[in-house]
Formats: sequence, C-alpha cells, structure tokens
Amino acid sequence: MKAEILYGFHPVYEALRAGRRIFHEIYISKRTSNKRLERIRLTADRKKLPIKELSPAKLQAIAGNAAHQGIAASVNAYPLVELGDILKSALSDGRLPFLLLLDHIVDPHNLGAIIRTALCAGVDGVIIPKDRAAYPSPAVCKISSGALEHMCVAQVNNMVRCGKSLKERDLWIVGLDANAPQPIYGASLTGALGLVIGGEEKGLRPLVRKKCDYLMSIPQRATLGSLNASVAAAIAIYESYRQRWANEHL
Amino acid sequence: MKAEILYGFHPVYEALRAGRRIFHEIYISKRTSNKRLERIRLTADRKKLPIKELSPAKLQAIAGNAAHQGIAASVNAYPLVELGDILKSALSDGRLPFLLLLDHIVDPHNLGAIIRTALCAGVDGVIIPKDRAAYPSPAVCKISSGALEHMCVAQVNNMVRCGKSLKERDLWIVGLDANAPQPIYGASLTGALGLVIGGEEKGLRPLVRKKCDYLMSIPQRATLGSLNASVAAAIAIYESYRQRWANEHL
Repeated sequence: MKAEILYGFHPVYEALRAGRRIFHEIYISKRTSNKRLERIRLTADRKKLPIKELSPAKLQAIAGNAAHQGIAASVNAYPLVELGDILKSALSDGRLPFLLLLDHIVDPHNLGAIIRTALCAGVDGVIIPKDRAAYPSPAVCKISSGALEHMCVAQVNNMVRCGKSLKERDLWIVGLDANAPQPIYGASLTGALGLVIGGEEKGLRPLVRKKCDYLMSIPQRATLGSLNASVAAAIAIYESYRQRWANEHL
Repeated sequence: MKAEILYGFHPVYEALRAGRRIFHEIYISKRTSNKRLERIRLTADRKKLPIKELSPAKLQAIAGNAAHQGIAASVNAYPLVELGDILKSALSDGRLPFLLLLDHIVDPHNLGAIIRTALCAGVDGVIIPKDRAAYPSPAVCKISSGALEHMCVAQVNNMVRCGKSLKERDLWIVGLDANAPQPIYGASLTGALGLVIGGEEKGLRPLVRKKCDYLMSIPQRATLGSLNASVAAAIAIYESYRQRWANEHL
C-alpha cells in the first residue's frame, strides 16, 4: 500500500484524532519539545504507535519540507470516499446533503483553504475531478490545518456527469460565477445543495455551467479588484450556512 | 525618498491605474511578451514613464523574487494615509464609514488576502499598528493582487487609543472573537463600523477587546477545525456587506 508522509502538528494530530489513516511510524525531532508535541506523543502511546526520535536534519529529509514543526508521520495514502457514501451518510443523519464540487481548482493553497472552511461550515463532502486539479496531498493537509483528515473527499472522472447524477438525486446544483446577474444573497441556499466552484483562471467550464440549476455571483461594491478563489468559496459556503443557521435560530 | 520594487502584473498595473505612486522606472523582461504586459507598456508610454528591457536574470535580481511574471517597477514607498482623511472621505461621499482594524496580523499572506477582500466589499480603510504586524510591502501588494494600490491604509501607534477615538466619532467598534457567544448573524452591522480582527495566534488582545462595543463570533457547525484568519475576516466583512446590500435591494 502506497505510503505518504504527513508533516506539521495539525496534520499529524488531526489524522490521529480522525482515525482514518494507518500509521506506520511517527517521527519527532529530538531537539524540539513543547506541549503540542507532547499531546501527539501521549495519543500515539495510547494507540501503541511506534515513535522514532530523529535529528532535525533527518526529520527534514523525511518530511521533504521545512514546515514540519518538529513532527512527521508515515501513513497510508489519503482515504478518498465514494460519492454515494457521502450522500448516504448525510441522509442517514437526517440532514439535507451539502456538497462542494470543485471544477478544477489547481492551486493546493486554494484546495486546502476551501476544505478548512468547508469543515467549519458542516459541508458533507468535497468532490474533485481526477485530472488537472489539485489532489489531497500532505501539503494540502498542512494548508487545511488538518481539516482534510476529517473531511470526506470523493474523486470523479467526469464533473458534468457528476452534476447530472446529483440533480437526479434531488440536489440543487448552484454554480458560483462572477458574471452571473443573480446575487447569492437573493436566493435560497438551504435545500439539498451542490455548490460548484470553478477553477482559478477560467472559472466554470461551459459544460459544467450548463448543468447548473442556477448561476450566482458574489456582489462587489467596487468594480476594481476580484475575490481570491478560496475567499469567494468561503463567502458562498458561509452564505448557505448563514441561511441554515437563520432557519434554526431566528 | 525611499524607493521599493513592485513585482508582478497586478501590482504594477494597479499601481499605474491608482496613480498614487511615483514611478522611477519600469522593468520588463526581454523574453516575455504577452497581452497583459502590452497593456502595461501602453499605459506607461501614455504616461511617459521610462521602461527598461532586462534579461530574465537581471529582472529576477531586481525583483528579488521569482514571482515577477516578467515585470517589475521601481516606485516610491507605499503611500500610507491618515485615519482622519479616511473618515473625511467616506463622510464626504455620504457613506457611513466602514473600517477594518487589524490588531497584529503578522502573516503577509493574511494581510494581502484581507486587503483584497476589503476592496471588493467597499471597505473605506484598513488600520494597522506600527509594531509587530505585517506591513504593506511589495509582497503584500502581490498577494492582494494589486488591491493594496487602491485601498487606504493607515498606521497607528496604539490600537486601543484608535478604537477609543473611533467610538468618540460615533463608529460602532465590533471585535471578531471566536469565543464570543453573540454570532455575527444576529446583529446589525450596517452602521458606521470599525470591525476589529485579531492576530493569527492569540486573537484580540485583552485591552483591545475591552474597548469593543460588541464581540461577535462566526458560528461553526463542527467543533472540529477553525477558520483561517483571512477567511474569518472575509466572512465578517461580507456579512456586513450583505446586510448593507439587503437594505438597498430587498
């Protein structure tokens, strides 16, 4: 089974908490000791996972990245899930599914940032395409501050077909499009929802756009400037969350 | 006068459009030519600004950063503004001022991202402290995708005193605090507003928190995870924007 190296406190700690990865070995820097690393050491001891103390140079070589914060772990590959299982799990909890469809987000920073926001807002799953898109790598896990370990991510061959099949399962497919005349604030985003976010450069592809029930934009006060892809996603995700919240609380 | 080097398409182009910097010289890579750089060349010609063609290696040496996209410019230091002038300009336009107070944001990525979002949402000005905080550098300008060139940024010695003086000028000072019981969605954020965002590690400092009229949090569905500082700022900025928008449109 393919292994990969998680690095940084949050990725290793959240992977331990989430319990979805097999841990082969945990590496802790000999020269670093702080309360956060102690928390990992205790959790690993309780789970009887092997810990190896390494010199900073060796840890750096294993992590392959400077941002390891004194901790890394060899684990099995990221556990992708099936789209059907995400829907089943939301429905069995009595919730209307809330999915994100990322139509070719290529920057790992944006993928990690979107997954981090999605976890906070209770998104049930994130769907990514197989080709020409950022993958849930250890770097994405680090950027997501470990949120990736708790989020359900499904990979599909064809985003257009995926949108079609979600529509058949009674989700509303709403595409975020900077040029859409309809603003996100005028519409109801509280039902079973598949929110489609386009890629950084070209936004939604024409075929994906055609499959959407609605296209919506985030209003801007100034004609100057544009929103970063992960910020635009966050504003749309939280607008849906706000509406759900308001239904429960106001 | 201290000069600095802007690099990347958006920083140079938006600085030219905003017209707030003195341009000493514009540097274009000899080996790069595309439509975007042509736009800069035309604008610079019209303004009679000197352009120098450089080899990629020399451009790299001047820009001091790999992310220059074939373009850099020597300009005067970032034009900070006075807090009083921001308020005056908002009021003379007949608007209720909408300010951001960044209480020790240290990561240039977060500062740049927040300024980019603030420009889209029509924030009148961003206030930063003099010490221990990210500064509007060329790197921040790049991260903001050039939005920094259009935004008014004021630097103050003392954030607590600044909050106090804004209260005396009838702004509501609202602090974003992950532990506040009051959610941002229950409250009115449409008046004259100073939204206070805390630093990445420790949030709002106690003295700043005490000066706030209200403390508010962004609700989370999951107890797992936390929002990135610039994403939390974006959600709060856009919640205020949404409420203003709703007053005008709904």
